[in-house]
Amino acid sequence: MKDSRRNFIKKTTVAGLLTFIPGKNLFANFNIINRNTDKMKLTFKPYTLELKHVFTIATNSRKTTPVMLTKIEYDNFVGYGEASMPPYLGESHETAGKFLSKVDLSNFKDPFDMENILAYVDSIESGNPAAKASIDIALHDLIGKILKAPLYKIWGYDKTKAPFTSYTIGIDTAEVVKQKVREADEYKIIKVKLGRENDKEMIETIRSVTDKPITIDANQGWTDKEKALDMIYWLKERGIKFIEQAMPKQNIDDNAWLTERSPLPTFGDESVQRLPDVIKAHGVYSGINIKLMKCTGLREANKMLNLARSLGMQVMMGCMTETSCAISAASQIAPMVDWADLDGALLIRNDPFEGTKVIDGKVTLTDASGIGLTKVDKNVI
Amino acid sequence: MKDSRRNFIKKTTVAGLLTFIPGKNLFANFNIINRNTDKMKLTFKPYTLELKHVFTIATNSRKTTPVMLTKIEYDNFVGYGEASMPPYLGESHETAGKFLSKVDLSNFKDPFDMENILAYVDSIESGNPAAKASIDIALHDLIGKILKAPLYKIWGYDKTKAPFTSYTIGIDTAEVVKQKVREADEYKIIKVKLGRENDKEMIETIRSVTDKPITIDANQGWTDKEKALDMIYWLKERGIKFIEQAMPKQNIDDNAWLTERSPLPTFGDESVQRLPDVIKAHGVYSGINIKLMKCTGLREANKMLNLARSLGMQVMMGCMTETSCAISAASQIAPMVDWADLDGALLIRNDPFEGTKVIDGKVTLTDASGIGLTKVDKNVI
Repeated sequence: MKDSRRNFIKKTTVAGLLTFIPGKNLFANFNIINRNTDKMKLTFKPYTLELKHVFTIATNSRKTTPVMLTKIEYDNFVGYGEASMPPYLGESHETAGKFLSKVDLSNFKDPFDMENILAYVDSIESGNPAAKASIDIALHDLIGKILKAPLYKIWGYDKTKAPFTSYTIGIDTAEVVKQKVREADEYKIIKVKLGRENDKEMIETIRSVTDKPITIDANQGWTDKEKALDMIYWLKERGIKFIEQAMPKQNIDDNAWLTERSPLPTFGDESVQRLPDVIKAHGVYSGINIKLMKCTGLREANKMLNLARSLGMQVMMGCMTETSCAISAASQIAPMVDWADLDGALLIRNDPFEGTKVIDGKVTLTDASGIGLTKVDKNVI
Repeated sequence: MKDSRRNFIKKTTVAGLLTFIPGKNLFANFNIINRNTDKMKLTFKPYTLELKHVFTIATNSRKTTPVMLTKIEYDNFVGYGEASMPPYLGESHETAGKFLSKVDLSNFKDPFDMENILAYVDSIESGNPAAKASIDIALHDLIGKILKAPLYKIWGYDKTKAPFTSYTIGIDTAEVVKQKVREADEYKIIKVKLGRENDKEMIETIRSVTDKPITIDANQGWTDKEKALDMIYWLKERGIKFIEQAMPKQNIDDNAWLTERSPLPTFGDESVQRLPDVIKAHGVYSGINIKLMKCTGLREANKMLNLARSLGMQVMMGCMTETSCAISAASQIAPMVDWADLDGALLIRNDPFEGTKVIDGKVTLTDASGIGLTKVDKNVI
């Protein structure tokens, strides 16, 4: 996938010519220049999301999330992408910048060559799933724009079937939790991060102000399977719908034991990163949580969706705190999932994009091409 | 999926109006009329393929294949489809005509609503996979034409990766077999139908005139697993590449036993009709043979491909004797398979379409939109 030395010299020469002679149309008949202008151009820029609330889960607290915004330009079209990188997952502005610097799209004829491009991107280095997703999302946005159709439509999905999204309430004091639940009036489903000593107290606090359906993300916080099962029975009586990642991901037998006995569906999240993990999750969880930032993007997400369905598993679509770019991308698949947890853009103050919105709690896709995005902050990338 | 009585009355009224007032543009601002003219229109017409050679497999011989050609018209675009129905599979002009008469697309807003449309078509009645495929193919052709792009491109596949197709030699006398092999000069891989007493003789006859790679389709013709295994060892020494459906499909344990020991990959064909069969084939065969006429079309075929890949299985794309319509459709997925057996249109005299061709043995897709078809016989549908 590396340029040959000869191609490198050709390109350098052209770049040189263009520096000296701004009227590049003069060269329109030169193959060498046509070829160069036909290339895809990748740009990336770090950005920092400011969260509306300090965000606390079982393992940490924070007030910002680093993201890398990307764009791929081709033939007067621009596709946008994003890597959202909560620090505990190991990616950062630095790792994403390093990875994206290695991505050379000049060997591919056009953005439609997606199976090859994404196999190449995946092969550059292991890991880096969010950085990889930022390429996948930008490519998908680009091809949708060239085809002049939103992706959900290209894929044959019915956007009216996108589910209500849950709205996440972080771990906090009873007063703050109540306040957050009241603020979440528009949302039909509350997602609660559990996995601490005060789990029952959290639920009782929330139940004191709302009777909405609740979903639970334990973030691997429960370690005793018998206690976990008791807790799930207790939760079921309080209108909880399902439990995400109840126990540590490495405790496969315990998770399978729990799923077999659980009166509520269980979902694997930390356990299920990429496509091969779906097979491994079969028999261990009732369903999987697909997140673009774990699975390298939309192409693999669609494959995971289909695989999970074939295995008779439920599917939820999740997210990190991210801009409307990654949320709009994920929402293209939302019509096909059982549960959506796509509140990521609602939790930030400085969203530079507009796209899929949550309207009356429902994931509501636009009809704009690609991932359906409008750039609000013109200078962001 | 049924019209409400109220909608039925509305539509009847509009049809009445249009009969009396031909200048329908007068009504352009009336939603009710726009809605009606926006409907998809399905047409179907029986056609009979004339085979170049009498075609003999383990279970029967024949000289023709009944097919049903379809078209779906929408907004000045036309998509073409086909159901090919070799008689031993149970569908016919009559069954397909009956089934297609029940298909009412008037409740769907446009052809992009594919997940819903195909779920509805599948729900009308069980069975009828070829008739169902004739809708799926026409819809895919239609959306490709609206998007102005070939399907392989929309799906991100690289058409240059489409494999060589095998060319099938039916069971016949030694002289005719030799003659057929000589006629097949252009093709790089020979597929041989075995499953009779004279299997070794067939292979020796072919090997007397060519040393090309050979693939075997036993069509469930071998019944003793030990003998089958001996035969596969014998075949491996003679440059055979894989064995398709060695033993009867209901003998799951025998097929699994054989696959575990076979020095060549085994493929399930009769065993693998639709998506749920792929899971069942895992551990029983090394790979699956996907045919549009078994699996109800391209949408399910792509899901089967992804599922088989996730399970680490090989994939071949097969066909019936069919026109360039169904072959061009199947070829859109060919870039992603290990083996192609897409010689169906080469075996007939009266192909009313042109599309994907076999050039120097290779499945060669056109760059035309949709499934890449040109209608040669203008009156055929």
